[in-house]
Order: sequence, then structure tokens, then C-alpha cells
Amino acid sequence: MIHQQLLDQQFMQMALDLAKQGLGRTSPNPMVGAVVAQDGKAVGQGWHQRAGTPHAEVHALQAAGDQANGATLYVTLEPCCHHGKTPPCTDAVIKAGIRRVVVAMTDPNPCVGGGGIARLKAAGVEVVSGILAQEAARLNEVFIKWISTGLPFAILKTAMTLDGKIATVSGRSKWITGDAARQRVHMLRDRCDAILAGIGTVLADDPSLTTRLPQGGKNPIRIILDSQARIPLDANVITDVLAPTIIVVGPHAPAEKLTALRSKGVEILAVRCRDGGLDLRELFQTLGSRNITSVLVEGGAAVNAGLIRENLIDKVYWFIAPKFFGGISAPGPVGGEGIAAVDQAVALEDIAVEAIDQDLMITGYVERREGRHVYRACGGTGQSEIPEPGGKII
Amino acid sequence: MIHQQLLDQQFMQMALDLAKQGLGRTSPNPMVGAVVAQDGKAVGQGWHQRAGTPHAEVHALQAAGDQANGATLYVTLEPCCHHGKTPPCTDAVIKAGIRRVVVAMTDPNPCVGGGGIARLKAAGVEVVSGILAQEAARLNEVFIKWISTGLPFAILKTAMTLDGKIATVSGRSKWITGDAARQRVHMLRDRCDAILAGIGTVLADDPSLTTRLPQGGKNPIRIILDSQARIPLDANVITDVLAPTIIVVGPHAPAEKLTALRSKGVEILAVRCRDGGLDLRELFQTLGSRNITSVLVEGGAAVNAGLIRENLIDKVYWFIAPKFFGGISAPGPVGGEGIAAVDQAVALEDIAVEAIDQDLMITGYVERREGRHVYRACGGTGQSEIPEPGGKII
Repeated sequence: MIHQQLLDQQFMQMALDLAKQGLGRTSPNPMVGAVVAQDGKAVGQGWHQRAGTPHAEVHALQAAGDQANGATLYVTLEPCCHHGKTPPCTDAVIKAGIRRVVVAMTDPNPCVGGGGIARLKAAGVEVVSGILAQEAARLNEVFIKWISTGLPFAILKTAMTLDGKIATVSGRSKWITGDAARQRVHMLRDRCDAILAGIGTVLADDPSLTTRLPQGGKNPIRIILDSQARIPLDANVITDVLAPTIIVVGPHAPAEKLTALRSKGVEILAVRCRDGGLDLRELFQTLGSRNITSVLVEGGAAVNAGLIRENLIDKVYWFIAPKFFGGISAPGPVGGEGIAAVDQAVALEDIAVEAIDQDLMITGYVERREGRHVYRACGGTGQSEIPEPGGKII
Repeated sequence: MIHQQLLDQQFMQMALDLAKQGLGRTSPNPMVGAVVAQDGKAVGQGWHQRAGTPHAEVHALQAAGDQANGATLYVTLEPCCHHGKTPPCTDAVIKAGIRRVVVAMTDPNPCVGGGGIARLKAAGVEVVSGILAQEAARLNEVFIKWISTGLPFAILKTAMTLDGKIATVSGRSKWITGDAARQRVHMLRDRCDAILAGIGTVLADDPSLTTRLPQGGKNPIRIILDSQARIPLDANVITDVLAPTIIVVGPHAPAEKLTALRSKGVEILAVRCRDGGLDLRELFQTLGSRNITSVLVEGGAAVNAGLIRENLIDKVYWFIAPKFFGGISAPGPVGGEGIAAVDQAVALEDIAVEAIDQDLMITGYVERREGRHVYRACGGTGQSEIPEPGGKII
């Protein structure tokens, strides 16, 4: 039995590694990997490569051919049992003569979860579930959030000095962190469906918000929060046509400016105002309904504060440069009104630290984030991941 | 030869471990440990316990007794050759018949460095130097700074949220970090000669600035920066008589208040004003001349900024709690005017990270600190100590 368990974990790890090949390319679908194993050997492998193309199971079954008959199928997510853009995978599994199916986690979509497994069992296939469930849930944290709440999974990224400044008193911020840390940001852009910034950032830096990696990369959809439509018509995000740009405006943005912007080929998305700012929840619901499953937030202090207050942030990537800017008026990463009592603080969990050249990258999850219960039910632990002490102890 | 080298390192490590027993108790002397070894066996051990008591070598030689004759002496710092509060150790070493002396580092005092070694050699003793020099320099970083510059080694400690706030918008800060991190702060207090805070902290929190550890501890001398002598006569640091308190005032502090303060038993230290604040460099020179070798700075944003600007900070202990306070007006750890251009930032080096329960502790050294060249000459590397990635990689 122990031998079988180890074998199951080994093949599931292989399937997870295959799934990761789809990182940033499968949206709005999850990443899925599959392995067909016969007599302790992998005889077919596959992963989901892009939405609208065959699922991982189909690739693996095709690769296995006749050897799928009587074999075990390892798949990181419960096989689908419905007709989407492709036929149901459960039918293909049954038809191929698979004897046993091992899944890491059930479908987090509350409408369909367990349906695929039930169908397989009804056809006499043995099903084992929950192998490396935690790793599978972490892999598809974006999909789990989006499918269970309708909201995109939002990653808040910031780069600050150790004394908590995202710019000097005179507004300079190029560059706080080193090359390697900035390349990590481009890797994040490459895997997110959209990137979000405020008009303040556009006016100050005129960024292009594109992905620049040595091997190329995918540009996310650019979303600019700009309630009064103040963005210049010659801003890079408007003129460079490297990726679609959505300007999010309030109800009172001047109509002629909106017409001019539309003529430049950018999309205008009007949302209500609330509490003196754009209704960010309405915006995120709209983005989610448009199959934007992930948003990388590269905002300033005000945008970050608004999204945190509305509980729209799921994960943070905090790059810290080992230096001080000082300055009582130098901006920090989170502005807004803030909380008054210490116990009202927004708590983070699952903290991890990584050294990136001279900089530190701290990641964590907002504890009260929506969809967390689904994520945990899928296998995510919420356990702290702070590494063992690696530095010199005082 | 390799066998001898390994043996030397092994006994020197033993001597370093012995030296650490004096942590926080030897000021203004360095921590020193010594081992007498004969035929590959330790036959005498000792460490310097307190200023005015015998040096480590003397303890070790006494423990070895007759077995010191023809033996090797391992000592973490070059033996002294001058009459201080105790007779020169070199004489005791020679008299005991030690054949070979292995030292980790030479005396960092530029006036005497190498003198002890020369005296031993002149007496026909073989001397080897530089074994575990880096570890020895790190152990005595406080002493090296003080003896080579006359200034105390200053440790800046702060506790902030991940978004860089040391209090909420309404000034609350109890508590940002958890119990374990706060206990670390008390361990720091226990080993420093003095603790420094600003009048703002006293007025806001009325702290006692004492050491509270389960096993007791040593209270540092309390230094309050209070240019106008605004401190209430019933402040804890004045009334609790748990440790000496020095109120640092400017030239225009009201005389009658100073008289009232003196009558309470606290010391008044008047320093000049410069750039609209107390002359912090003059203050630190005075503290150093009074054998205060280390100062733990637990200041607010203004005090921290002033000390950083004057290049008086050597090391930082940065406790980061994984939570957000937010708030554009919530204070950060370093205020003041700040720097304008990114490349004027105060750089830190030798960064290390440790997880303390849910919090992080980041330590580092100010790159441009005074005495750094002496520290490095003594064996300190300035190499980064960022640990290997220990967290989950995205």
C-alpha cells in the first residue's frame, strides 16, 4: 500500500510539473497536467496548453494509445464531464479503457465539483482523490479564486526601500530594486491576464506596462484607473499598441475626451463612483465576467489602499531593497485613510521570503480574501511558509 | 599541516563559544575566549567575564596549571601587552611556558594592534594569527567600532508593518509584532550599554525602556533626546529608578526644569544644537568618551532620520509584521527630510533574514558606517549573508 502511495505521489508530481508548462497561457482555464501509467511506467503525458485546445487528459491518452487500456490516469484536476469548447474528458477516459483515475483535487467550480468523479465511478472506474492536493491548489490559486467568486485573482506588487518608501521625497523611483528583482516583475506580467495602474503612475512615469523578458513574453491587458479621463492622448499605453488598453473612468469624465480616446483605439470602461473614488468592486466584477482571471496591480499608494480596503487583493509580492530613502513626505506603498486600531490591520498569511540578488522578495496572501475557503477546501493549507532561519543569528 | 589547521579551527571555535558567554557583560572591553591545548586536548578554558576582572588568557592558564608548559594557547583576540586594570597577559603567557599562540584577530585598537604578538615573538613564542578572523570580528563588532572611532556602535531597531508603518494613523502601535519578536528586542536591550529614545516616544507611550526577560537581564542606561526638557517629572524613566537616565537637552532648555529633573536623580547632558536639532555627533562622542560602547536606538521617525543622516547608525534590526495598516499619514520608520535622488540612498549590506514566529527580522549594516574599514581589516567580510531561498518560489 505504501508502495502504491509513493508511486501515486511520484506520478502526480510529474503531472503537476507538466501542468506548469501552461503557466500564463491557459486562461480562463486552469493549468492541468496528466500522466497515463501502466505497470509503474509513464506511457503517456500531456498538459493543457491553451483555452480552446484539448485538455491534458486527451493529450496524455493520445500519447499512450493502446497502452491506456487497463492503465492508471493521473490528472491534477478532476476530469470535466460537460461539453465546453471540447468534448467531456470523462468520456475519453472511459472509452480508452482506463482502470483507475487518480486526481489531485476536485473541480473548484461549485456547480460541477465531483461530477466528473461520479461519472467515472458510475462507469466502473476506480477513483482516488486528494493526492498532492495542496500543491495542485497552489498551482491553480488564480483559477480557484475566479471560478468560485467571479472576481479576478489580484496580485499586489510593490518595490520599496527597507524604510517603506516607494519613491524619494522628490518622487524619484528609478530604480529602487536591482535588475533581477525587476525581471521577476516582468515574469509576473507575463503570466497575468491584466495589469492595473492608476492615472498618477501614468502621469508621473508614462510606463508602457508591457512584458520585457529576454525570451519575449505575453503582454497583459492594460487597465488604467482614471476617473476624470486625464490621460494624455500620447501616453505610451495609448500609442504603442503593444497590448489592449482599457481606461476606467467615472460617470463625470468629459465626453469629448472619451471620444478622442476611443478614436485612438483604446476601450473606455465607465464604472460608478463610490466613497469619492471609482467603484473598484464593480470594476473587478466586470473584469471577472470578461474572463480576466488575474490582475497584477502596480499601483501607487492610493490605488493600493483602495483595493486593499475593498478586499480585492489576494496575494502580495513585496520587493524590498536594502536601503533607506528617509523623508517624512516620501510616499509609502499603501496610502488612503488607513486603519485606526492595531487589531483592524489587514493580516497576511503564508509568508515566504526569497533573496533576489541584493533585494528581498516577500510573498503572502491576504488572510480575509474572498474564495479562501474554497482554496483551502481544495487543499491549500494556510500554513505559514516562512523558511527556517537562513541568516546569521544575532 | 591540514590536520593542524583543522585542529586550530576547532579550538578557536571553542574559544569563540567561550567568549560569547560574556555577551553584554564585558563593556567597555571586548568579549574574549581562550583555550589551552596540549597534545590535541583542551586542558584549560576561560573567558573574559566583566571589565576589571582577569582576562580570558589568565583564566585559561590558571585552569591548565602545569599543563600549560609547552602547550598551545588559542585566544580570540591578540593578548594585551600593557598594564590596564589587570597586568599584561603576554607576561602571563610567557611565564606559563606556552610554546605556541594562535589568535583569531589582532587588537583593533590602532595604538596597540600587533604589540602583543610582537612581544610574544620576541620571547620565542610561535604565533599564528587570522584563524576564524571573520567570526571574531563579527563577535566584537561593537568593540571594534568604539575602539577605532571613539563612537558607540549604534543599533537601530524598528518594528513596522509590511507596508512600512510604525503606528496607525491614530498613533497606535501596541503591538505591531508578536511576543517572540518583542522578546528579541529585550535580548538586544540586555546586551547594549545604553538605549536611546526621543521625547516624542516618551510623551506618547511613557515607556520604561528596561529589559524584561524571563531570566532577568541587565537594564541599559536610558538616554532621552529632549532638547526643550519637556519630559514630565513623573515619566517612568525618571521615577522607576530601574536604570540611570540621561536627559539630553539643548542650550535653551529652561533652567528651572533642569533643576527639577536633577533633583529627581536623573543626569542632564547639554549639547549644542545644529541644523535645528541636537548635535547628535557631539552627543555620540560624549557617550563614547564615557565608555558607552553600544547604543540601542528605539526612536521614532525623526530620531531615526537624524541619526542616519549623521551616519551614526551601524547596524539595523528591522522587525516586519505581515500586516497592513495603510494610511497616508501613518508614520514610517524614517522621517526627516530624506534624500532626493535614488542614488543618494543609504545602502545596507550583509543583509540577513530570520523568521520569528509570524514576523520577520531583517538585519543589516550601514555600508558607509565609520570604522567599517577597521572591521573589515579585522576579518569582517562585507559579503552578503542573504540566505538561500527558503520559501515557496512563485
